[in-house]
Amino acid sequence: MTYELHYWPSIPGRGEFVRLALEAAGAPYVDIARGGDDAGSGVTAMQRALGDRRARQPPFAPPFLKDGDFVVGQTAAILAYLAPTLKLVGRSEQVRTWTMQIQLTIADMVTEAHDTHHPIATSLYYEDQKPEALRRAEDFCRVRMPKFLQWFERILSQNPAGARYLVGGRLSYADLSLFHLVEGLRYAFPLAAERVLARTPLVVELHQRVASQPKVAAYLRSERRLPFNEQCIFRRYPELDTIPTSPHS
Amino acid sequence: MTYELHYWPSIPGRGEFVRLALEAAGAPYVDIARGGDDAGSGVTAMQRALGDRRARQPPFAPPFLKDGDFVVGQTAAILAYLAPTLKLVGRSEQVRTWTMQIQLTIADMVTEAHDTHHPIATSLYYEDQKPEALRRAEDFCRVRMPKFLQWFERILSQNPAGARYLVGGRLSYADLSLFHLVEGLRYAFPLAAERVLARTPLVVELHQRVASQPKVAAYLRSERRLPFNEQCIFRRYPELDTIPTSPHS
Repeated sequence: MTYELHYWPSIPGRGEFVRLALEAAGAPYVDIARGGDDAGSGVTAMQRALGDRRARQPPFAPPFLKDGDFVVGQTAAILAYLAPTLKLVGRSEQVRTWTMQIQLTIADMVTEAHDTHHPIATSLYYEDQKPEALRRAEDFCRVRMPKFLQWFERILSQNPAGARYLVGGRLSYADLSLFHLVEGLRYAFPLAAERVLARTPLVVELHQRVASQPKVAAYLRSERRLPFNEQCIFRRYPELDTIPTSPHS
Repeated sequence: MTYELHYWPSIPGRGEFVRLALEAAGAPYVDIARGGDDAGSGVTAMQRALGDRRARQPPFAPPFLKDGDFVVGQTAAILAYLAPTLKLVGRSEQVRTWTMQIQLTIADMVTEAHDTHHPIATSLYYEDQKPEALRRAEDFCRVRMPKFLQWFERILSQNPAGARYLVGGRLSYADLSLFHLVEGLRYAFPLAAERVLARTPLVVELHQRVASQPKVAAYLRSERRLPFNEQCIFRRYPELDTIPTSPHS
C-alpha cells in the first residue's frame, strides 16, 4: 500500500516530520501536492481532499495522510498511527505513550519557534508584526529554547537503556522529529541554537546519529528533501537570532 | 488503583481536561497538588515529582498523571493513555487515532486562546504585553475562533453516526474536552464566543449534552470543580473580547 502524504509543496514545515518517518522506514509514499495539477495530484488535489463535504473524518489542516480510505491529520496523530507499521515505536502501551509525550513536547516547541516570527497572527506578514516578533524571539532564545533542549538532554541522560535514543535502545519517530527540530533551530537561530546546544551534547550526538542512518542520509541527499526557507516554520531572520548580553543569563 | 493527578491547585488550566475524563468515568483519583504540604501531597510533592533525577520518564510540565509506577505528561497523551480503561474511546485503532486528532486540534485552539493574553512570553505579566495582546486577541476573535469552531461543527455534521457526539455514537474524551473549551471561550470572550457559537448549533448542543451527563453534572456542582480566574488559560479581560465592527467580516 502506497501512503499519500498531503502537505504544502514549497516548505518542509510540519509535513517534514511525517516525511522523515516514511523515509527512515523506507515506506512507499506519494507526496501529493508536489505532483502536477493532474491525475489527482498537486495542491488542488490536497485542497479538494481537505474540503470534502462527504468525508467522515476531514482533517483541520495539512499535513494529513491517506492510507487507503483512512485519512489522518495532526502531525503527532499521523506519527502515532504510522509508527507501529513502520517499526518506529516500541510495542508496549507505556512505550507508545512515552514516545507520544516526547513528540507532543517537540510539537509545542515547533509552535513556539513558529510564533517567534508570527506572534500576532498567521494571517499577517512578518513585516506587519516585526516589533512583536523581536520581543517574542528574545524570550524564545533566552528562556524557552534552553528549557526545551535541556529537557531533551535530561530524558536522554535518564534513559535506562542509555543515551543513544530518546526511547529505549532503538530509533523511534521521536528521534527523527528531534533531529528535524535541531535542524530547524540551527537554520533559524544559528547563534542562539549553537549557544544552547553547546550545553546539550547528548542532543547534538543524537542529531548526528539520526543523520547517519543510511536511509535518512540518502533522503537528505535527495531532491525529496526540501530546503528551509522564509515561508516555513523555521525562518532565518538575523534580527530574531539573539543571544543574551548579560553574563548572568 | 487510585490515579494521581498532578497540576497547579489554583486554576482549571490544562489539568481540567484530565480531571473531566476521570470524573466523567467515575475513576478514583487524588488531586495531589490540592492537598496539604504533607503526606506526599501539595505543590511541593508535584514539583518534587517533576524534578526527580532518577525518573525514567520525567514529564516536561504539569499536568501529569501517575498510574502506579507509570508517569505520563502532556494532556493529549494522558487522555489517550487513560481513555481505553475509562471507556472514553472506541476500540479500533482508527477510532482512537481520530479521537486523538480531534483532541490535538482542541489543544491547538487552547494554546491560541492562552496566547491572546500572553503573545510575547509566559514569563511576563499580561500588563507587560498588553498592546500585543490586543492585536493577537482581535485576530483570535475574528479569524481563529470561527475557523476552529466551524471545524468542530463540520465534523459533528459529517459524523456518520449522527451529530450527538464527535466520534461515533458514544461519549469520548474529545467531547469532554470540547465541552471545557466552550466553557473557557464563553468565560474569556463572552461577546465574541456567543457570536461565533450562534453559527455552530451542534457544538452548543454537544456542550449541553456533556454538561447533562449525570457524573459530569455532579462534578460541576462540586467543590472539586475550580472556577476560571485570571491566572488561567482562559482569562476574562474585557478589552480582549472583541467583535468585528465591519458588516463584511
